Amino acid sequence: MTDTSPLAPAAFPELPPIAGLQLATHAAGIKYEKRADLFLAALAEGTTVAGTFTQSLCPSAPVDWCRRILAEGDGTARAVVCNSGNANAFTGRAGDTAAALTAELVAAGLGIDADRVFLASTGVIGETLPEDALREGLPALAGSLDNATSRTWADAAFAIRTTDTFSKGASARVPGTAAHIAGIAKGSGMIAPDMATMLAFVFTDLGVAPDILQVALSRSVASSFNRITVDSDTSTSDTVLLFATGEQIDDEITTTDDERFPDFQAALDSVLLDLAHQIVRDGEGATKFVEITVSGAASDDAAETIAFAIGNSPLVKTALAAEDANWGRIVMAVGKAGEAADRDELAIWIGPEQCAANGVVIDGYSEERATAHLQEDEVSIRVDVGVGSGSATIWTCDLTHGYIEINAGYRS
Amino acid sequence: MTDTSPLAPAAFPELPPIAGLQLATHAAGIKYEKRADLFLAALAEGTTVAGTFTQSLCPSAPVDWCRRILAEGDGTARAVVCNSGNANAFTGRAGDTAAALTAELVAAGLGIDADRVFLASTGVIGETLPEDALREGLPALAGSLDNATSRTWADAAFAIRTTDTFSKGASARVPGTAAHIAGIAKGSGMIAPDMATMLAFVFTDLGVAPDILQVALSRSVASSFNRITVDSDTSTSDTVLLFATGEQIDDEITTTDDERFPDFQAALDSVLLDLAHQIVRDGEGATKFVEITVSGAASDDAAETIAFAIGNSPLVKTALAAEDANWGRIVMAVGKAGEAADRDELAIWIGPEQCAANGVVIDGYSEERATAHLQEDEVSIRVDVGVGSGSATIWTCDLTHGYIEINAGYRS
Repeated sequence: MTDTSPLAPAAFPELPPIAGLQLATHAAGIKYEKRADLFLAALAEGTTVAGTFTQSLCPSAPVDWCRRILAEGDGTARAVVCNSGNANAFTGRAGDTAAALTAELVAAGLGIDADRVFLASTGVIGETLPEDALREGLPALAGSLDNATSRTWADAAFAIRTTDTFSKGASARVPGTAAHIAGIAKGSGMIAPDMATMLAFVFTDLGVAPDILQVALSRSVASSFNRITVDSDTSTSDTVLLFATGEQIDDEITTTDDERFPDFQAALDSVLLDLAHQIVRDGEGATKFVEITVSGAASDDAAETIAFAIGNSPLVKTALAAEDANWGRIVMAVGKAGEAADRDELAIWIGPEQCAANGVVIDGYSEERATAHLQEDEVSIRVDVGVGSGSATIWTCDLTHGYIEINAGYRS
Repeated sequence: MTDTSPLAPAAFPELPPIAGLQLATHAAGIKYEKRADLFLAALAEGTTVAGTFTQSLCPSAPVDWCRRILAEGDGTARAVVCNSGNANAFTGRAGDTAAALTAELVAAGLGIDADRVFLASTGVIGETLPEDALREGLPALAGSLDNATSRTWADAAFAIRTTDTFSKGASARVPGTAAHIAGIAKGSGMIAPDMATMLAFVFTDLGVAPDILQVALSRSVASSFNRITVDSDTSTSDTVLLFATGEQIDDEITTTDDERFPDFQAALDSVLLDLAHQIVRDGEGATKFVEITVSGAASDDAAETIAFAIGNSPLVKTALAAEDANWGRIVMAVGKAGEAADRDELAIWIGPEQCAANGVVIDGYSEERATAHLQEDEVSIRVDVGVGSGSATIWTCDLTHGYIEINAGYRS
């Protein structure tokens, strides 16, 4: 097991209970020995659900399953189950069978409909889920449900980890209500926009109608999970699921005009951004948490494209690892992004230190001060491309020997 | 200096003389100490020229210069000069001034028009070319011209190197004529489609009208330099220039219908592909030369996009470095490419060993045999995505600790 990322938070946070939510974990030996690899959340009747999934054209069987039951269902959910160690991806018909079996075993254990059981799997691609482990582990899970407490949250966040070096959780109170939002996530490599290898399960005891829940989730994901990149690779399994039990509210939110909606959206944004940042902080081999802001672009989308060109550039990422204020590589990345940029208007900052303006190094630029900024754990790069008013911020990490070490070894 | 790539050819090839071409090199101390960093080729009157350049929207001053004199000129050239160590990119007006000075000094030395002098620079971005070194070095270059011989070719190929670990050259005879094609190239990182950080200067003593020369060059580049990737990064300076002196032919080729044209195109294709492959073999930190073929795609362009998604994936590249037959990562890369692929029709081969068919591992797949193939220096991956008849082949290398080592150290 790799050492904990140097960018990890000091400890797993205290997550609040969510009324109507119970959690369980179990060590089923799917791939890992002697550690929990199954996670189950059981949800009160009437819980609503929203989801976003990988843009991969070769999605895993659980992603297909979730998309189908979301589309065909009534917007409610009774459970979500996740295994780590095996992604159940590229497994053909056997994969669909294993997904259905998983849902059926959980449904039988909880006395609910299998089509209300959401699924996620993460780990190795191309290997069939072992049926014996499912038949043994899933009923055990259903029998050990407990309320969401500090301990069960921490156990849940651990059970879904693969190459993660720390467990990820975040929460927020929804202002003006007794409701909370709490969630766990996993992911450390294969992270790129459009839902890369990451899973997140987020729960609230607010009541929100399914279509409104989906609006809120899609908005939050666009500015959080879809704004991070570790290595530009995108997994077959990415899934973010949001469940609202409605147990802490009398009347559910049924429109975005509801006066409580903005507070809910803001609280959800903060939880998802926190989880997304934790995933970057656990980027495989990461030693730097990097914020990249692009302004002056033709549009916000163009700014995002340029920011990702910088954040995905191996040459930029290795320079950051070396604490080398090599802003020439930033120019290179801006140039290759394919979006309008005025070379002779470009301005670049490394942390607070401006390197370039009007397309040339500025008088008084101090490489020493730029380097001092890059020696910190959290660094920022800002670029103004001088053609418009579009802007975007993304987050990434550096590219180090650690990345090679992890990915040339682990069969993920 | 890094050790020579394990994938390097045994020796620099014997390149033929090209009638009407003279070469010179000089150590001007632009950045490197005690090594040649200037290269000059002088060309007979009437020499025609064609060029392709970086798609970067922040191109270097020499790229701007070449584009301008190609567009405004009559299709002829009298010289090309290249310096290594400084890219003269992102240098604002001072960069344009340095480019013009370079051309003027060479023109004065050779008694020709500055607008017939082509330029290229490679190395650090953001630093102005030192005027003193130019004023000292360029006249010296013009005074030391010699015919293209084995020795002067080798010196020329050395002078244009930056992080390259070996000099790159290739040649071919044009069948049915007394003419040859010979060229040199440099590049080892920042290599991606659309003319990444690489320079190539190719010469023939065939006579070809400028528009036909451009047709031939564009076709050859599309299937060679634009089909390689080391790290997906694209430089500000990429340049391929092709010069035809016409000294070995009585009447020049003025149409693609000329019966000599197909032989010329084929010979040019072979020289450019050879040079492109050498650049991949010198990929920073490379230990594997990797050929990736995608078939069954919706179109040839779609196949190329999928092939590059595989070839640029850090997870695929680290698996190749580890000689790990991790075909799940290939599925991931196909899925993220965004081009049509039928997950349940996917077929994958590692070398001669088929891993998967119809979207699942095939019976009798031997990971041992696949791994044995990956232990070789030259490996191949083939994927059929099962939706059409488009196909494409690209070449890349693996991603190793060596890449990090080189790029976290060298200020390129």
